[in-house]
Amino acid sequence: MSDRFAVRRERVLKALKETEADAVLVTSETNVRYLTGFTGDSTYLLLAPKATRLISDSRYEAQLAEECPGVPAHIRTQRTKMVDSVAEVFKQEKPGRVGFEGEQVSFAFWEQLRDAAKTTELTSLGGLVETLRAVKDAGEIAEIRAAIRLAERAFRVAVAGLTPEMTEIEVSYELERNIRRFGGQGLSFEAIVAAGDRAALPHYRPSRNPIGDAGLLLIDWGARGPGGYISDLTRTFATAKPSTKLEKVHGIVDQARTAAITAVRPGMKATDVDAAARRMIEKAGYGKNFGHGLGHGIGLQVHESIRLSSISTDVLKAGMVFTIEPGIYLEGWGGVRIEDNVLVTKDGCEVLSTLPRALERVGLV
Amino acid sequence: MSDRFAVRRERVLKALKETEADAVLVTSETNVRYLTGFTGDSTYLLLAPKATRLISDSRYEAQLAEECPGVPAHIRTQRTKMVDSVAEVFKQEKPGRVGFEGEQVSFAFWEQLRDAAKTTELTSLGGLVETLRAVKDAGEIAEIRAAIRLAERAFRVAVAGLTPEMTEIEVSYELERNIRRFGGQGLSFEAIVAAGDRAALPHYRPSRNPIGDAGLLLIDWGARGPGGYISDLTRTFATAKPSTKLEKVHGIVDQARTAAITAVRPGMKATDVDAAARRMIEKAGYGKNFGHGLGHGIGLQVHESIRLSSISTDVLKAGMVFTIEPGIYLEGWGGVRIEDNVLVTKDGCEVLSTLPRALERVGLV
Repeated sequence: MSDRFAVRRERVLKALKETEADAVLVTSETNVRYLTGFTGDSTYLLLAPKATRLISDSRYEAQLAEECPGVPAHIRTQRTKMVDSVAEVFKQEKPGRVGFEGEQVSFAFWEQLRDAAKTTELTSLGGLVETLRAVKDAGEIAEIRAAIRLAERAFRVAVAGLTPEMTEIEVSYELERNIRRFGGQGLSFEAIVAAGDRAALPHYRPSRNPIGDAGLLLIDWGARGPGGYISDLTRTFATAKPSTKLEKVHGIVDQARTAAITAVRPGMKATDVDAAARRMIEKAGYGKNFGHGLGHGIGLQVHESIRLSSISTDVLKAGMVFTIEPGIYLEGWGGVRIEDNVLVTKDGCEVLSTLPRALERVGLV
Repeated sequence: MSDRFAVRRERVLKALKETEADAVLVTSETNVRYLTGFTGDSTYLLLAPKATRLISDSRYEAQLAEECPGVPAHIRTQRTKMVDSVAEVFKQEKPGRVGFEGEQVSFAFWEQLRDAAKTTELTSLGGLVETLRAVKDAGEIAEIRAAIRLAERAFRVAVAGLTPEMTEIEVSYELERNIRRFGGQGLSFEAIVAAGDRAALPHYRPSRNPIGDAGLLLIDWGARGPGGYISDLTRTFATAKPSTKLEKVHGIVDQARTAAITAVRPGMKATDVDAAARRMIEKAGYGKNFGHGLGHGIGLQVHESIRLSSISTDVLKAGMVFTIEPGIYLEGWGGVRIEDNVLVTKDGCEVLSTLPRALERVGLV
């Protein structure tokens, strides 16, 4: 098992050669996990051609020995600050010019490290590890597939049991309970369960209001699988006989979703995928009602590289897994979003999620 | 309701006068919430004597109008980056020298903002808002009390129903289910439920192993109340007839806890509170088995200002609420931690948590 972490560390060292740095200080909790298997926090990783050192404290000493048997750990005492511990490891290992994760490290930490490690030259790196993480290996894809299955199974059970009296938050708890019952860690983020006009808020939090039977119901949820990988899906339903408007808006969003998915292939610009969906929505006259990007990478985090939006600079590669989630939001009326998870293949894309998308009526007693 | 946010913003503006900055760009999600009541993310706040502006995007337009009616929002389009939006607001408002949250802002964001807002002078501020947040107002103390009651009630129900066959993770779910049943949002962090020698890992994650009946059980949990404030508690039990060693270690930890609580009073150094507990544990010969700080502030976050440790520079003030949580961890044997939540009063401290601490035997069928 530790092999795949060693393979990833080798890939980082290789990518490092294209930068101005000789070594990298990995400070992002998720990146440390990705490169070592360590599931705790407050732990950094120095990765240099001749030195691999975890930097942590005594709370994690036993856990590090268990989870990362091949990686030596520098354990600081309760009296030493992380920044001084890092400086000490620099002194011992003489890693040369050290790249740090500029998007992860706080400005204040950078100032402190610069002062504590005066003889070590520091340079800010972009998302070096994040870029590698965007392309998933076979094990990661299997874990994401499992997280999608968990989310879908939990959802089928929850939707089958919906009643108008259930509150939005009860629907969310029911999803979580089912995900755990089937072996997942739980929801991958606080689910959005939004009934009626509340669905116009793309990032709404579920309330104690009943879902009712007057209009529509939007559910945006995902599962975190046993190994930490996640899924992120959305479906929108009718909770009464669907109005012509709901049918129309739902149809446009579904066409936009399918236009984007049909377009996906390696080498394509992320902006072009976004545009494929956005064009459909604009053509239907709802351009200004789709106020967010089309999608984002998923993996150990709910939002990770890449971004699909009109200002993205990313380019699609085989092995990337991301969401496709167009939506139309109309204040005072509600919103429709449809979200699937897709994998870029060598000549197109595979839709990993399998739930039907038709505008069903749910919640009938 | 919006009043209390306006009062807090006034306090920030007042504190700002002691710094080199004329205005502050608040980027921490929790700080934005504390100062405006906004419960979403990806939203910054510019706070200047003559301008208060939220900077967000269209996903949050309706939610901002609802949650922060008194604070004008600058809504960026999907095509504008946050950093450019901030620069635009600077241009409109001419806030003078802008302090930013150096511990919150990433190095990369700082670089981008420096380049995007060339005519605005930027200066890094320490935890200006965090320092104000450390002293709770009456409403906040009431919310923390409620979060403690939720955690305690959920715990009593869960402990009353423990069986040796329950897994650690089932105990955690049971705590969460109860917290929600009684009106809370859920656990305030993933509960630590550690049986036997697993309790030697201070930051253990609950497993699918049964809690059994061979030794000890450590539970570290907390509730998030309806308004977002949290509690954070720990109790350690016997799951069989307690050994002499367990009784001894438990007794030492409890003495350390009480020594610290007895010492707490306004004006005292945080290091001295930590030392009061640490001394007891060192005297008993377990100094090296207490590898973490004594406690931390609680509020909207599980870990917030202040820190109680041997390297803290904080000083206690009336109105601060924090954990007191000494522990002794022995690899291969297990661990004992006792954690209470206390409020600094004008002449001492009030222990807000009320659960008994005696070494009870639990899980009997």
